[in-house]
Amino acid sequence: MDYITGIGRTKFGKLQESLPELMALAIREALLDSSLQPQDIQAAYITNFVGDSLVDQLHLGALLSSLLKTNIPATRIESACASGGVGVLQARMALEQFDPVLVIGAEKMSTSSSPAVAKRLGTAGCALIDQEVGLIFPANYALMAQEHMREYGTTSHDLALIALKNHTNARLNPLAHFYHKDVDLEMIEDSPTVCSPLRLFDCSPISDGAVAVILSREQKHSHDPHFLASTMATDSLSIVERRDLTTFRAATIASKKAYHQAECTAADIDFAQVHDCFTIAELVAMEDLGFADAGRAAEYVRDNRFALSGDKPVNTDGGLKADGHPIGASGVAQIYETVLQLRGQAEKRQLDCARIGLTHNIGGAGGTCAIHILEGA
Amino acid sequence: MDYITGIGRTKFGKLQESLPELMALAIREALLDSSLQPQDIQAAYITNFVGDSLVDQLHLGALLSSLLKTNIPATRIESACASGGVGVLQARMALEQFDPVLVIGAEKMSTSSSPAVAKRLGTAGCALIDQEVGLIFPANYALMAQEHMREYGTTSHDLALIALKNHTNARLNPLAHFYHKDVDLEMIEDSPTVCSPLRLFDCSPISDGAVAVILSREQKHSHDPHFLASTMATDSLSIVERRDLTTFRAATIASKKAYHQAECTAADIDFAQVHDCFTIAELVAMEDLGFADAGRAAEYVRDNRFALSGDKPVNTDGGLKADGHPIGASGVAQIYETVLQLRGQAEKRQLDCARIGLTHNIGGAGGTCAIHILEGA
Repeated sequence: MDYITGIGRTKFGKLQESLPELMALAIREALLDSSLQPQDIQAAYITNFVGDSLVDQLHLGALLSSLLKTNIPATRIESACASGGVGVLQARMALEQFDPVLVIGAEKMSTSSSPAVAKRLGTAGCALIDQEVGLIFPANYALMAQEHMREYGTTSHDLALIALKNHTNARLNPLAHFYHKDVDLEMIEDSPTVCSPLRLFDCSPISDGAVAVILSREQKHSHDPHFLASTMATDSLSIVERRDLTTFRAATIASKKAYHQAECTAADIDFAQVHDCFTIAELVAMEDLGFADAGRAAEYVRDNRFALSGDKPVNTDGGLKADGHPIGASGVAQIYETVLQLRGQAEKRQLDCARIGLTHNIGGAGGTCAIHILEGA
Repeated sequence: MDYITGIGRTKFGKLQESLPELMALAIREALLDSSLQPQDIQAAYITNFVGDSLVDQLHLGALLSSLLKTNIPATRIESACASGGVGVLQARMALEQFDPVLVIGAEKMSTSSSPAVAKRLGTAGCALIDQEVGLIFPANYALMAQEHMREYGTTSHDLALIALKNHTNARLNPLAHFYHKDVDLEMIEDSPTVCSPLRLFDCSPISDGAVAVILSREQKHSHDPHFLASTMATDSLSIVERRDLTTFRAATIASKKAYHQAECTAADIDFAQVHDCFTIAELVAMEDLGFADAGRAAEYVRDNRFALSGDKPVNTDGGLKADGHPIGASGVAQIYETVLQLRGQAEKRQLDCARIGLTHNIGGAGGTCAIHILEGA
């Protein structure tokens, strides 16, 4: 079995630290958490999205060599916003040869202006088709929201309830981008429209941050959780090529495979961290993962079933929406929160029943989906 | 054993095709070569360096889904100029679960001006230390050349002989960037200085191009070669952190491990494709790989031992120097040429004795090195 034997992360938000500094902070904490020295790590993956255009730094595998002072295989993985989840999947493949394996997800975005960042985010979509005609990311997800509303009667109020839940959870997570921000329904529903029907509070923020996890073939501490499944699937880069905008095909394929690997069903998942880059993405995730039938997730949202107190808590850390979205780190942050919950170390947001947790990490407009299922010790 | 069951590539140079078009051309040829359909591929890796800043396109795994019309796991690997070699290594790891696996290396660089490209190439080095003080890539390698000259008496003429050999080989490779270019020693030695002692002809060009290879756990055709070794190692991102600039530590570590995996020595390697981004890099590679003792490679160069007619032919396709250097594709191109030679299909540049071939792919200023050893059927 493959275990997670160490975790570490920085605060998310607009931070002072450089990309290498963020990486070093998260790695140091994961090493301490696992009682390992830098030279114990046998292979490493760094997951990062826009180091090229935003901080003029690629070749981050070699940067890891500099940070760890070792010469191990160290490789950068980029799958847009799913980079972190995909990196953890690659690390599990590498575990066959190398043990332990480090995954560090990191992104530095706040040094650039929001329009500059928005332009770079567009590279996660299809430059040649969608982006050229103005189908930038808020527009991609706004189209999905419009389709979901038309098909199933989902409302803006349903989406606002998702934002409210995630901001509420982030108020219990001291590392969250919006830990200090009190948000109520009125503030959400009065926020300016970004791309109809999506308002400002339907969108995740631009964050800096880094998260590290250490994988091992053996359990090192009595609290170490293990993997039940790791899968990924892809779909067309352009949303123009999709038949149905109310679901992510990559997510339905990856989750079916994950349940098969884990020999379980959606009903067996106690809690989940899902990719809520926009509130509509969380709603769609609930249906793609089988937490609700198609078109029924909004009803569950209204019934608070995905809240900390619900029967299927989702985005217990605040999600991308309120914990923050340092892109290359987000998928690894989902694993971090899952491990905290499985260990019973999530403090004020600790769930009563946290035995099996799932992570769902989407790239771009659904072009990639990586899923992991972890079971507590 | 792991086999290479299909190969395909485009011409290298300043090409008309877009990045997706280049990818599609190389993949189509590899599928035809292996008698496979797109839907037969079970997992894929795309190796690319500067898609973000030069063509505004990241998330190339999802682009592969669009091209292949499948939903398989497809992941981008970036290890600067070693991306291709590292991608093939990751693909071998993936072969444990998925079979066959496609690797496509692709880069589109000629749409930007040379100064713009040079700035992006800097991201393969250390942005925070080297690049800030002017240690851009020609300067990195010029320092290495100066050190090698000071330590071992290597001369500019020795480097010119390497350029001449590689241009000579490229004249036998119709897909090479400089296939049509007649180059003689006078032209090389009279070329303008880029960064002393390196002249224009000591530097590899800015190329577009794509190369695809298909890996399988089973031999599909009688000519399919198999892997004897795949290794990688890293070193500090900044050259300021290195003790010795006359050797690449990542290359010596990776090659030792490769010989160990393959249960062979440098003497058993019949021919090699090495990373000659600058001529000095080929000279250093000869010593790092054990083809010559430290400080002795220049003597072997003068004796033509690395020429097609020599006892250890190196860069039979013209190398990065003259075949071209579409960065993310270069490491895959080394595998392509090795397979051609092992199959006996290298036409005018076919070697008489090509039983075991090695590829040596360097990232940045030696921050990554990936090595593969292949044996013919």
